[in-house]
This record gives sequence, structure tokens and C-alpha cells, in this order.
Amino acid sequence: MPILVMKFGGTSVATLDRIRRAAKRVGREVANGHDVIVIVSAMSGETNKLVGFVEETAPLYDAREYDAVVSSGENVTAGLMALTLQEMDIPARSWQGWQVPLRTTSAHAAARIEEIPSANIMRKFEEGMKVAVVAGFQGISPEGRITTLGRGGSDTTAVAFAAAFGAVRCDIYTDVDGVYTTDPRITSKARKLDRIAFEEMLELASLGAKVLQTRSVELAMRYKVKLRVLSSFEEMSDEAGTLVVPEEDIVESNVVAGVAYSRDEAKLTLTQVADRPGIAAAIFGPLAEASVNVDMIVQNISDGGTTDMTFSCPVNEVKRAEKALNDAKAAGQIDFTQLVADTNVCKVSIVGIGMRSHAGVAAKMFQTLRDEGINIKVITTSEIKVSVLVDRKYLELAVQALHDAFGLDRAA
Amino acid sequence: MPILVMKFGGTSVATLDRIRRAAKRVGREVANGHDVIVIVSAMSGETNKLVGFVEETAPLYDAREYDAVVSSGENVTAGLMALTLQEMDIPARSWQGWQVPLRTTSAHAAARIEEIPSANIMRKFEEGMKVAVVAGFQGISPEGRITTLGRGGSDTTAVAFAAAFGAVRCDIYTDVDGVYTTDPRITSKARKLDRIAFEEMLELASLGAKVLQTRSVELAMRYKVKLRVLSSFEEMSDEAGTLVVPEEDIVESNVVAGVAYSRDEAKLTLTQVADRPGIAAAIFGPLAEASVNVDMIVQNISDGGTTDMTFSCPVNEVKRAEKALNDAKAAGQIDFTQLVADTNVCKVSIVGIGMRSHAGVAAKMFQTLRDEGINIKVITTSEIKVSVLVDRKYLELAVQALHDAFGLDRAA
Repeated sequence: MPILVMKFGGTSVATLDRIRRAAKRVGREVANGHDVIVIVSAMSGETNKLVGFVEETAPLYDAREYDAVVSSGENVTAGLMALTLQEMDIPARSWQGWQVPLRTTSAHAAARIEEIPSANIMRKFEEGMKVAVVAGFQGISPEGRITTLGRGGSDTTAVAFAAAFGAVRCDIYTDVDGVYTTDPRITSKARKLDRIAFEEMLELASLGAKVLQTRSVELAMRYKVKLRVLSSFEEMSDEAGTLVVPEEDIVESNVVAGVAYSRDEAKLTLTQVADRPGIAAAIFGPLAEASVNVDMIVQNISDGGTTDMTFSCPVNEVKRAEKALNDAKAAGQIDFTQLVADTNVCKVSIVGIGMRSHAGVAAKMFQTLRDEGINIKVITTSEIKVSVLVDRKYLELAVQALHDAFGLDRAA
Repeated sequence: MPILVMKFGGTSVATLDRIRRAAKRVGREVANGHDVIVIVSAMSGETNKLVGFVEETAPLYDAREYDAVVSSGENVTAGLMALTLQEMDIPARSWQGWQVPLRTTSAHAAARIEEIPSANIMRKFEEGMKVAVVAGFQGISPEGRITTLGRGGSDTTAVAFAAAFGAVRCDIYTDVDGVYTTDPRITSKARKLDRIAFEEMLELASLGAKVLQTRSVELAMRYKVKLRVLSSFEEMSDEAGTLVVPEEDIVESNVVAGVAYSRDEAKLTLTQVADRPGIAAAIFGPLAEASVNVDMIVQNISDGGTTDMTFSCPVNEVKRAEKALNDAKAAGQIDFTQLVADTNVCKVSIVGIGMRSHAGVAAKMFQTLRDEGINIKVITTSEIKVSVLVDRKYLELAVQALHDAFGLDRAA
């Protein structure tokens, strides 16, 4: 039988009724002739509650105990899903991570999957079981301790199972019905994409479109797992959701696939930094140690032996960044005149594999923003993406203007 | 280092504050020079919530999935207790049942412990760990599935660990401060016992004094585990609680150790049953199949080839009992004239190892009840116990009168 992987996120299993609804979708795929591996998250709210317990108990917690505690929500959902399927006369059983065993590294709270032996579950399929329900987000370390894969880790679990079992597809059921050209809350012209390339999805995921965990997309790309994102809350059809596929499976597409944004960014500028080799390392080393997620970096042209260095990071990391840089200055590791923080900026990006073969995409973006009177503060580009920092008040305007300019409301 | 087992029930770990309070008691025992094995229940209310989920999902549930779901509450508490101890700079880690591994039979939801290998935890003690926190109530079957030990199973887990590790004592922390001569809600003269014999505790446990799970007492008796019951909510002293010990460790004691009761009993009588060999089996076989917990059984003197058969069971099983008996009559397996149910009775019992060597204890009980005008409906006796069924309205009166008559308000 072809194997299908179906993953249900926290909102899709938030109540017993929703678990029943999800189980019906699984039943339909069984009726369609699939053996199904179902990956479940914890009922929504559960993991947050458990994380809250841990953080209140021990602010600097032992990550091994953190994992033992926060993984328990998925165990509950897995058992309840198996019971629900059995009630529908579908042979099913649950597996916890250690029972598979889903082997991971020992990097507790952010473990990486090393191996998923398939023999155990395949034998059950051969014996007539139709659905294996697996608790997502968790695994077992070489030391036999429970590990978790980090937030959103159930997506990664699902993709890893699809790769390990050679699944025909990996369906990610969530509370949105697919990947959009941009956030529909910002413009009603946002259009659901039928298909998107892995590379585009990766950029969109890391740019703040919270549909899929970035690592799950990387994994899907590496193992060529056909990924589908679709809603648990809408009627299912074969055309539902968005397929995430290799670039070569996309026949026609717009040059730009989507407009992404990240609202709470900050821009920090160090003025009159000595322009000498190694200065970037001297600045960004302390920031990395302080766990500041530096995103865009711009270095101005040198002027008389000094330069201005600008970078962006999330707003809530500005205090940490300032402390790290001032400490480094006090310790004589770096030298600058001023540290200027602008905490009122946002990042807007256009993403599309079509950029590789089309010139003038960035220029069109800049023109569009200029025509709206929006000043660009920082620019970065990659092969399939152009990002700009602009004042936060222009976020909606910029997204809407770019969505229009690149014709994203119309299919290619 | 001598090993001490400490078990904390659901109310003792109901909140993070209570877990901290319990951890302080553990810390004191570590300071006293013990290596400690802590057995924890789920936070109170959690297991009931999970059982509710399972029963709502699948009224006739797969007990293997039931176990996978309901065991998760203990995992949360075990991790939180380990974190709390670490915050107090006490080297600690948590173990789930399968990690020990606590091996059980495959009788899901009512599994029995088969083996607790100690090497794993002992090595950690040798490496400097001071506290092993173990999730109670759960184990692993020969098939590698999670099992649970039935309600109150954490007491049994604790005693089994104490036996397996040769612990100096097993302290059961609960919401009462020990074992009383009777329920203090019924008479303020009830007195906490400093010591009680295993056999007495067994009778009291099975008679409805809900301090300890019966199986845990059986296990403690078999392996001579010194058991102490004490409150999590009172200041600790070395004299706190009640010690449950072998009979030979009790130097002086009252003839009667305690008065127990069970409020919601029913008396069923089958009239004019054919008095022939095998009739008891014909009656009680169907009742056992219908899961009726038959307690006392009395057969009247035969009168012209027929007899009356009377038995007691919990009130809420009367309907099931009636159906089983009427079905058996309809099927021609048994014959009787009438089935009379009296659902307004209760059971009152006196328990004490001293009865073995003292005559006239039962007679004194019957006299006491007669003097209060209480009619006795059924009597059963064992070596260390006398139980009577009386009208429920006399329950408090009977308990108080017996407590006075046997001088239980005074120590021996």
C-alpha cells in the first residue's frame, strides 16, 4: 500500500471533537487505499502550559527535564487519536518517540533527527494495521533520554517520517488553508498558491510566514518529500491547500511568488567604527554570544579610516545587543562613537525563483516603494529574494503596493 | 548510603508550590545522609481529566491506549520535581517507567510489577546523584507498551522500589497525617496510631480506609518493607505519621486497632434456592462474570430442600447483580422464588491482631450494638476482623459506640 503521512497541528486537535474531525480525514485516506502515518501535536495550549510550569520552576532549567515534561502533551493526543480511529473500526495504534524509536542527537530542546527505523511500524502495516499514530516533536537521545525538536518540531517529525517511509506525500494540516502570496489580513487581494517551490517556501518560512517550520522545509527539499499544506477546518478536495514541490515541478509561475514581512525589527548603527580587517568579527562575535539574531548587515563606505556599521535584529533583542556592544567597547575589543537604535522599522521582502532568470526585479521593487513615498533604510538581496527595512508605519502600504506591482492577485 | 523511598500523592504535588514543599522534605532526608528515590503521582485532577478524555473518546477503550494517555500526568510531575530539586542544588534526575525499566505484566490498566532492575539508578547514585525521581503508577509490558498499575498504583510503585533497592523505609506522603483508629469525621475521639501491623492495615485498607492501596500493603508485608504514612501538610518530626510494620514489631496494642466502615452497601437475598451441591457456584459465577464485587455471603439453614442465600455488594452494583441473577434464572441455571434487595445498609468492622489471642471480642461487639438498639443483619468474621451489616442510619452511632467500647481513644 502507498504510505501517506498526515500531520495535525495543535489547533487541529485542540478538542475531542476536532480530533474526531481529523480522524475522519484520516479515514478517508485509508478508504482511498493508503496506509497512513499520522503525526500529532499536543492539544493547543498544552505545550505552553507545560513550558510555563518548567520556566516557573527553574528559570535556568535542565533541558533534559524540560524535554521530559513538555513532550507529554503529544503522548496524550497520540493515544486519543488512536482510540478515535479504533472507534471508527480503523486498526490503529499510537507510538511515542522512544517506541519507534525516533533517534535524535542529544541537543535537548533543539534535537536533530538522526534515524527513524521503519521495520517496527512496517511490520504492523503488514499485519493489517492501517494507521500508525506518532507523537510529534519528540525523540530519544543516545543516552536514552527524551528529546524534543524545538518549536514546530512536529512538522519536522512528519517530513522525516515521510522520507524514512518513502511516503507518496506529506500533508500538513493546520489552521490556514495553504500558502498565500502575502498575509490575507494585510490585503484581501492575497491569493492562495496552488504550488510553491521548496526554495521559495524556505525563504517565506524564515521571513515570518508561519505556515511551516523552516527545518521541515529544508528536510523536505533534501529528501524530495512532496509536501502539502492544507486546512483542517475546510472541506477537503484533491485540489486543496498548497503543494510545496521541487523547482522543476513548477511549470508556470510569477517572477515573484510572494511578499513576506516581519513587523518588529530594529536597526542598529555603530558610527565611526575603525575600518580594519577583523572588525566585523569583533562586532558580531559578542552579539552571537549574547544570542542576538542578527539579520541584515550593511557596512558603509570607509571615510578616513572609519566606517558606519548597520545591522538589524528583532526589537525585543535590542537591549541585549546594546549591552553586548557596550561591554565589548568597555573591554577595548571594539571602538565606535555612537550606537544608534531605530526600533520603529519593519522588514518587507519579495521572494520568487523567477528572479534568477529575470532582471530588474529589485529595481521594480525600489521604484514601487519610491512611488509611494516610502524611504528604504537597508537593502539585502539573495538569489531569490530582496528584503528592505522601512519605517514600521509603511508596512501595510509597502506590502499592498508590492503585491499589486508584481501582479500577485492573478495566477501566472 | 542508606536508600529511602519517599512517595508523594496527587494532593502533595498539586501545584508548583506544593512540589517545592515536597522537595524541601526530600532535601532534609538528603541532608540526613540518605540517597532518595522519590515516587510521584500526577498533579491532582490530571489523571481524572485524562481518564475523562479517554472515556468520552471511546467508552469501550483499548486499554493499551488508555495507559499511554493516562500515564502522562506522572511524567510531568517527575520532571518538575527533578527541576525543583536541581534548583535547590541537589543532584537529581527523573525516570519514566520505561526508562527504569519497571517491567510489568501485559494486563493493561491493572498491570502487576514483575521486575525493577536497580543497576541503572544505582550507578547514578554512585556517580553522585542524590535523588532519583520516578514517575509512579506506570511501567512497560513485555511488548514494549506503556502499562499502568490501576488506581493508587503509585503506592505500589513506591513499595516495589523500596523492596528492589533494599530501602531503609518507604514514606508515603499523603493528605492525612497517618492511620486513625477510625474516621475522625465520625468521632473526634479518633486517635492517630503510631504503629499498626501489616495485617491490620490490609484489613483496614480493604474495608474502606483509603490511606493506602491494598496491593501496596500486601507487597510491603511480603518483602518486609517498613512503611510510614504521613502528611505532606504538617511539620515533619521523626515521630510523625503511622508506621506500618510486621506484627512482631508491635509490642503493646489494643485488642482492636480500629473501626472501619463502608457506607454504601446493599444486601441481596435470594429466597427458596434449591439446596444442592454446586448451587453457590451457580449463583456467584454469573455475578463474577458481571463484575459484581460480592463481599459477605450468608447461607441460611436448609428448610425442606431449599435455603435462603444472602450476600452483600456495593450499592451501585445492585442493578448489575439483579440482571445477572434474573438472566441466570431465565436460562434455567438457578432457581429462586424472590430476589430481595435492601439498599439501605452499611458495613461496620472492628480490626485487630489482638483478636487472635483474646476471646469474647465478637460477643462484646454484638452486645455494644444491642445496647444501642442496632439490629445486626449479616455477620462475617476472619481471624483479625469482625464485620456486620446494619441499617445505614446507624453507621455513625455504631462506629462511635464501638470506638468507645474498645477504648480506642486511649493508647494501649
